[in-house]
Amino acid sequence: MDWINKKTVLIVGLGLMGGSYAMALKRLGYTVHALDVNEESINYALKNGLIDKGSVDPDKNLIASADAVIFALYPKTFVNWITDNQKYLKPGIFITDVTGVKQCIVYDIQKILREDVEFIASHPMAGREVSGVQNSNDMIFRDANYIVVPTEKNTGQAIEWCKMLGRILGFKRISVLSPKEHDRMIGYVSQLTHCIAVSLMTAIDLEHVEDYTGDSFRDLTRIARINENMWSELFLMNKETLIDEMDKFIDEMKNMKELIANEDVEGLKEKMRLSTKRRMRFDK
Amino acid sequence: MDWINKKTVLIVGLGLMGGSYAMALKRLGYTVHALDVNEESINYALKNGLIDKGSVDPDKNLIASADAVIFALYPKTFVNWITDNQKYLKPGIFITDVTGVKQCIVYDIQKILREDVEFIASHPMAGREVSGVQNSNDMIFRDANYIVVPTEKNTGQAIEWCKMLGRILGFKRISVLSPKEHDRMIGYVSQLTHCIAVSLMTAIDLEHVEDYTGDSFRDLTRIARINENMWSELFLMNKETLIDEMDKFIDEMKNMKELIANEDVEGLKEKMRLSTKRRMRFDK
Repeated sequence: MDWINKKTVLIVGLGLMGGSYAMALKRLGYTVHALDVNEESINYALKNGLIDKGSVDPDKNLIASADAVIFALYPKTFVNWITDNQKYLKPGIFITDVTGVKQCIVYDIQKILREDVEFIASHPMAGREVSGVQNSNDMIFRDANYIVVPTEKNTGQAIEWCKMLGRILGFKRISVLSPKEHDRMIGYVSQLTHCIAVSLMTAIDLEHVEDYTGDSFRDLTRIARINENMWSELFLMNKETLIDEMDKFIDEMKNMKELIANEDVEGLKEKMRLSTKRRMRFDK
Repeated sequence: MDWINKKTVLIVGLGLMGGSYAMALKRLGYTVHALDVNEESINYALKNGLIDKGSVDPDKNLIASADAVIFALYPKTFVNWITDNQKYLKPGIFITDVTGVKQCIVYDIQKILREDVEFIASHPMAGREVSGVQNSNDMIFRDANYIVVPTEKNTGQAIEWCKMLGRILGFKRISVLSPKEHDRMIGYVSQLTHCIAVSLMTAIDLEHVEDYTGDSFRDLTRIARINENMWSELFLMNKETLIDEMDKFIDEMKNMKELIANEDVEGLKEKMRLSTKRRMRFDK
């Protein structure tokens, strides 16, 4: 698909992410259609000019009109949608997604997908603590990373198309990782951090703690306000990697505890120096 | 001491916190003196109008001129300073501190302190990732909490004085906790969170991780860039409370891991709902 000549994009799943894609694509002059089971979401998007047409049913004509499709669905719903509705897709198009875990979805979709449509996976690393199309905002892409996640089945043309999509959406950095590399990275920087934030909130209940928190605790637990439906599914879909990373983290917490128990000041300082050194790479 | 009529405040220890106190007090019209072993810090503060006079030695006259003293030192240095120099303090004054741990310092100081000087402990819950007087900024107090930490030895007058100090410095919320309550609270919201951030950075080393991090990881590890001298000392001074809280947190991480391993979606969602509910109290 050529981004210049073909101009209709279909977004399946009009939540925060789908709505933000719609906002960015409309701004760029594309015709944007959307499907979502929630009528309120479709009406909101129509009323606020985020989309040109929308439907709560998998409208055959709307699907067939798309020159590109972006799936912003929960992983399991995505597989079901392809099974039921891929017959309506225009031949020769590229489709992509926004799913936060790749190994368990990319191969499944590529296996069941028609030969004349190509699925190239991608992961926009952007989000907010709030959900729903009403909270859409394409500014969330500005300082964010966009990861294209090809398999051996993907063509160079599809990879380039997907990179271009990331660029026109306004992402700061576009990169390419294999599904396995992606899931390990995301297990660490996203899922493990959410596990930690949740555990920190649930482990201890001090009365009036909110009156005594400084910025550190506030920042660390910002993501403890969490969409339980999405994240429980994401955790399970990256189960093995995530458990391995949780084990490594728990072991390291135990090491730290030993250092404190033994009053090993030098050992503690060494950990802190390593931590400082690694964290400084983020502030370049 | 009366904040209206008596106007000379001595700050002992001119780092980030001491400098920020100086900035706020100068702005309010106080005469501010400072002691610090680092000549560069004193010169910087004099040159930039943060203080009126300063010295690298425990200048007898400078100490004797103070109507109030604020100690912004590492805990151990604080005890040594009092032992060596309390003889110069003006009778009848109140002194306070900024120390982040209370049980192991407050009773010691009150035990060795002259009868005609009263030490009322306090903890300004503000800070930055950078240190040194050059990074001083009294804006850090604006959205922060200030905790007054009296013991049974303290008078109502000293407690009121200390609360007033927090108010004039510009803190958002002034509260009172016992040393034990304070240390438990701070172990949780400050030290445990720093342990977690450090462990998250040191547990796993993925190449180029900085290219893939979203806001969550960035926020969670912001404090992993840490002053190892100050924090190793703070950790050890609150050792028992901190270890107890680390244990609770590690257990909770293990619970979470079990839920993921057993694919217990309902159990995971329950944790996330509790976490969300508790975290929402912070955003009131």
